[in-house]
Order: sequence, then C-alpha cells, then structure tokens
Amino acid sequence: MDLFGGIEAGGTKFVCVAGSGPDDIRMEERFPTTSPVETIGKMVAFFQHAEKKLGKKFVSFGVASFGPVDLDTSSPTFGFITSTPKPGWKNTDLIGPLRKTFGVPVGFDTDVNGAAIGEGMWGAGKGLKHFIYITIGTGIGGGAVVDGKPLHGLIHPEMGHMLLPHDWDRDPFEGHCPYHGDCFEGMASGPALKARWGVSADGLPANHSAWDLEADYIASALQNLIAVLSPQRLILGGGVMQQEQLFPLIRGKLLEKMNNYFQSPAILNRMAEYVVPPGLGNQAGMLGALAMARNEIEK
Amino acid sequence: MDLFGGIEAGGTKFVCVAGSGPDDIRMEERFPTTSPVETIGKMVAFFQHAEKKLGKKFVSFGVASFGPVDLDTSSPTFGFITSTPKPGWKNTDLIGPLRKTFGVPVGFDTDVNGAAIGEGMWGAGKGLKHFIYITIGTGIGGGAVVDGKPLHGLIHPEMGHMLLPHDWDRDPFEGHCPYHGDCFEGMASGPALKARWGVSADGLPANHSAWDLEADYIASALQNLIAVLSPQRLILGGGVMQQEQLFPLIRGKLLEKMNNYFQSPAILNRMAEYVVPPGLGNQAGMLGALAMARNEIEK
Ligand SMILES: Nc1ncnc2c1ncn2[C@@H]1O[C@H](COP(=O)(O)OP(=O)(O)O)[C@@H](O)[C@H]1O
Ligand SMILES: Nc1ncnc2c1ncn2[C@@H]1O[C@H](COP(=O)(O)OP(=O)(O)O)[C@@H](O)[C@H]1O
Ligand SMILES: [Zn+2]
Ligand SMILES: [Zn+2]
Repeated sequence: MDLFGGIEAGGTKFVCVAGSGPDDIRMEERFPTTSPVETIGKMVAFFQHAEKKLGKKFVSFGVASFGPVDLDTSSPTFGFITSTPKPGWKNTDLIGPLRKTFGVPVGFDTDVNGAAIGEGMWGAGKGLKHFIYITIGTGIGGGAVVDGKPLHGLIHPEMGHMLLPHDWDRDPFEGHCPYHGDCFEGMASGPALKARWGVSADGLPANHSAWDLEADYIASALQNLIAVLSPQRLILGGGVMQQEQLFPLIRGKLLEKMNNYFQSPAILNRMAEYVVPPGLGNQAGMLGALAMARNEIEK
Repeated sequence: MDLFGGIEAGGTKFVCVAGSGPDDIRMEERFPTTSPVETIGKMVAFFQHAEKKLGKKFVSFGVASFGPVDLDTSSPTFGFITSTPKPGWKNTDLIGPLRKTFGVPVGFDTDVNGAAIGEGMWGAGKGLKHFIYITIGTGIGGGAVVDGKPLHGLIHPEMGHMLLPHDWDRDPFEGHCPYHGDCFEGMASGPALKARWGVSADGLPANHSAWDLEADYIASALQNLIAVLSPQRLILGGGVMQQEQLFPLIRGKLLEKMNNYFQSPAILNRMAEYVVPPGLGNQAGMLGALAMARNEIEK
C-alpha cells in the first residue's frame, strides 16, 4: 500500500501520522504547538524519520490546520495560516516546507473540513454527498461537504460564530467570545461552559442542568445549519460531545424547535441517524488529514 | 438567437417569459396562482401561443418554483411541488406538462436558487463562484451558489427559518412564523412587519424606527450566512428591500456585529459591494428562470 502523510495542525498540538487509513497507521507522533520554527521543524523531521524507518517514500501529504487559513489555490499564500491571534503564527507557510523537502503534492484545508473529509471517506459521512462535521471543544467549528466537495467560499466557514437566540432570564451568562460575546462558540464551547459554571466542562456531572442548556444552544445552531445548508447528516465531535447524554437531548430539542417544518424522512423519522457522533471518534482530524493526502493523488 | 422559456412559479402569481436574456424578452405574461390545473394550463397555453406568434420552437425551459420542491433528479417526483400548505398544490408536477407538450429539456429549482442563477449570469453575482441571493418579501428565502452551482442538499435551503437573537425588551413582538414564531421570517418578513406595527410594510415611513430593528435582524442573519457559507457577496431583494435606507443600516450593523472577526478585504473594506441589491431588480426571479433554461442546454 502507498504511504501517505497526514498532519492535524491544531492550536494546542500537532498530530503527525504515516499510513494509508484507519486500519493502516504505521507511525504516529504528537507534540505541543510551540513556535512555528520548532513545530514545523518537528513535523518535517518526523516524516523524514518515517521514510527511513518504513523504507518507503511518501506519495502525498494532507494538512488539516487551525485557522484562519488561505485555501485559495491561486493565491501566493495558499497553505498559509493567515491572521491568527496565536502569537508568532500569523502568515505561516505550513505546506511549503513539506513540498520542498519531499517534492510531492500537499493537500491543505481547515481542521474541520479535514475531519469532514475523513468522516466522508471512512466514517459517519460515508456514501453521503452533503453533510457537516462540527467540533465542540476549546472552540466551535464546522466543516461542510457539499456535492461531495469541502465547502470553502470567500475564506472558509466559521460556523462557531453564528448568532443564536439567548434567553437572558434563563441564562444571564454574557458569553465568552472575545469578538461577539454570546455567539455559538461564546455560549457553548468548553471554555464557555467553564466560565459560566465555574467548573471545567469535563468536571460537570452528567445530570447537571448545564447539559440541558448546552443542548438547547446546539439544537438552535443545528436548525440554522439545516436552514442554510440542508445537509443529509450532522456529525458532532469534539471534547464537549464526549458527554453522550447530549445526543438524545439535542435530537429532541431540534425536533421540537423545527416543529415539522423541514419535511424529510431523514429528519422526521430517522433523527437518531441524522445527528450522530463521528464514526472515527477522536481520530477524525488526524485520519481526515490522511484522507486529504489520498485525495491529492486522485485529482 | 435561440428561444428559451422561463417560468417564475410563485405562490401568488406565475410569470412566464419567452426570450433569451435581459435584452431579449420577446413575450411575457403574468397571472395569479389559482388551482394547479388552471394555472399550469395557462402556463402551457402561453408558451404554445408564443411558439406560434414568434414562429420559433422553444429550445428549453427553466422553472423556478415556490416550495418545498423535489430537486432530486433521480427521484420519481423530481420537478414536483411537494408538501406545501397551499391548498390544492401538494404533490403537483410542474415540469411534466412542459416536457410532454414541448419535448425539450426543462430545468427546475427553487424560486430563490433561480434568482441566484439569474444574478450570476447577468446581475450582481456575475463572475462570482460563491454568493447568496435572499428575498425579503411575503416570506424570506435564500438561494446559494457554491462553486458555481446552486446549492441543494437533502431538500433545499430554507434560510428564512434560521433562529436569531431576539431582544424581547426592545421588541416584545412574539413573531409571525406559524412553525417557529420568532425565526428570521417570523421577525422580518413583510407580514411580520405588518403584524408588529399594525401598518403594511410599504406604508411605514422611511424614518420609522421599524427599519432600525429590521436592519438588526437582517444583519444577524447575514452574519450567520457568512459564518456558514462564507459567500463572496450577499444580494438582498424582495419587496421589503425596496426600502433603500435599509442597505446602509444593514451594512453598518453587520460590520459592528462581526467586529473584525471575518478578515477579508471584501468584508472589511468593500462592504458597499458586499451587501447589495439585485443587479436585475425585481426581474431576478423571471430572468433566473430563463437563465436556468439556458443552463439546461449547456449541460
Ligand atoms: N468528557 C468531557 N466532557 C465535557 N467536556 C469535555 C470533556 N472532555 C473535554 N472536554 C472539554 O472540551 C474542550 C477540549 O476540546 P477538544 O475537542 O478535546 O480539544 P480542542 O478543541 O482543543 O482540539 C475543553 O474545554 C474540555 O473541558
Ligand atoms: N416599498 C416597500 N417597502 C416595504 N415593504 C414592501 C414594499 N413593497 C412591498 N413590500 C412588502 O413586501 C411583501 C411582498 O414582497 P414581494 O417580494 O413583492 O412579493 P413575494 O414575496 O410575495 O413574492 C409584502 O409584505 C409588502 O408589504
Ligand atoms: Zn464569536
Ligand atoms: Zn420559521
């Protein structure tokens, strides 16, 4: 089997993987995201080492990155992280060093589009042409596959920054997004939960009222995604969604909110298959990067 | 020049047009939407009459219809209006009668996708690959072009039914959508304005405080569309948008709400070209149907 390289470039850690798919991960390494020079150096070194150790050349790479990123293949800064507030990382070329060192094609997309692509190839999006992957973790982001292709547009989606109904009587928390206060991410990300309840999200008991409120915001966001993109499925991942009791809560609230307006059997009769966890679990991001590498040579 | 037929099939009126584009409209007819038999009969009769009068055969048709509609070309009910509450129109085949009578290709899409396609061919979406057309009239709907193609998905977008922040202190109106109460359409459509203020939307003076509130809801909705679809432009049409003072209000509020989060020069520096009225004015729908007919023969 050909050897592919995948990089999940996150704001807190990088995950590098060498292999060809979920059943063929030959080497893997994770390290914290420090300075660009150090982090990208480690990434390149890992893949050089892997070629030696595995006795095989990489056919292509896929980089699924934190953003904002430049996805415009005709732009001189294609493959760059652009205007990030993360110190040192503004205008960082992520794909140049791989291209120069290995001389093979390098696919590039957002971390969430990467996860969506991975779910489409091997996970909960398999066989679907239109679906959305949402991560609810330190931030909230979404990647969409439309007509079989990742959605880009002018920049790329930033689904976490949708504005949602906020019942101030029930929830006087002013929100945690430095830009918008009570946008989706500002209300429902892990750090928002911590700021609202004073306890880390993973420390809130499963029967805490936080989860009913959380499910409410997520259900509103999903109604909006359905209204705008009409996906065939919604895949919800990320640390916060480890709270499995959220799934039935979200599905129930979503059906209640939509109130039979969106008339599709997939929504009305098969909600348990419509809002689902990732088929690849917490490997969606890293496997997505590998899937992007594979797509590179099928172009 | 070849002869094309376009049908804007609206819930209150049908507009039928024979020609090839904005500068070549050879015949046009509008009639109220009554029963399916009568309305579809009039539509077919108009085009039969047009062939005789113009001495030319139609090459193809485009139908841009009120919904919900079936856009799945592999479905036996492709080209049907499906679960509409409009009396008599449930499960109505709109394209069969045209195909049978004229034996030529018939394109089919939602009314708002049709308008988007028309704007893309001849109007404010010309040269763009990703943009959205929104109508704010009796209802609110949106059509999107993604990667040069109209967005469909599971059913099709219903952008008017997004959920938005609702400041109950400022605006105690409970909303007008029979399904969701205070969704976007429930708060900002023409009938919602009438229900809130007790005056028909077109009777509210330009300096009425209604417009500041209206611009606020529209700006929230646009932020959500940017967050989800990252369009290159937003085109706002429909009866309510005849209130031209809304444009600068919406642009200002949108910039304020987004608070420099979406870092693109198109948004940060060229807002006056980012949120715009239709290039085709109120002919976007009818010309869109004609554009769809033209696309049919280029497939
Ligand atoms: N089991 C859990 N229950 C609730 N929240 C969790 C759980 N595990 C992690 N989280 C929260 O998810 C966030 C981390 O999200 P994660 O998706 O793991 O990483 P990141 O978004 O940084 O890539 C943190 O805010 C953490 O508190
Ligand atoms: N100049 C105007 N100012 C404000 N509202 C208007 C104006 N003209 C029409 N409207 C409102 O727009 C709605 C009709 O929208 P329109 O786009 O013309 O038709 P439809 O949505 O039925 O296809 C009505 O609610 C009407 O009150
Ligand atoms: Zn935000
Ligand atoms: Zn609604």
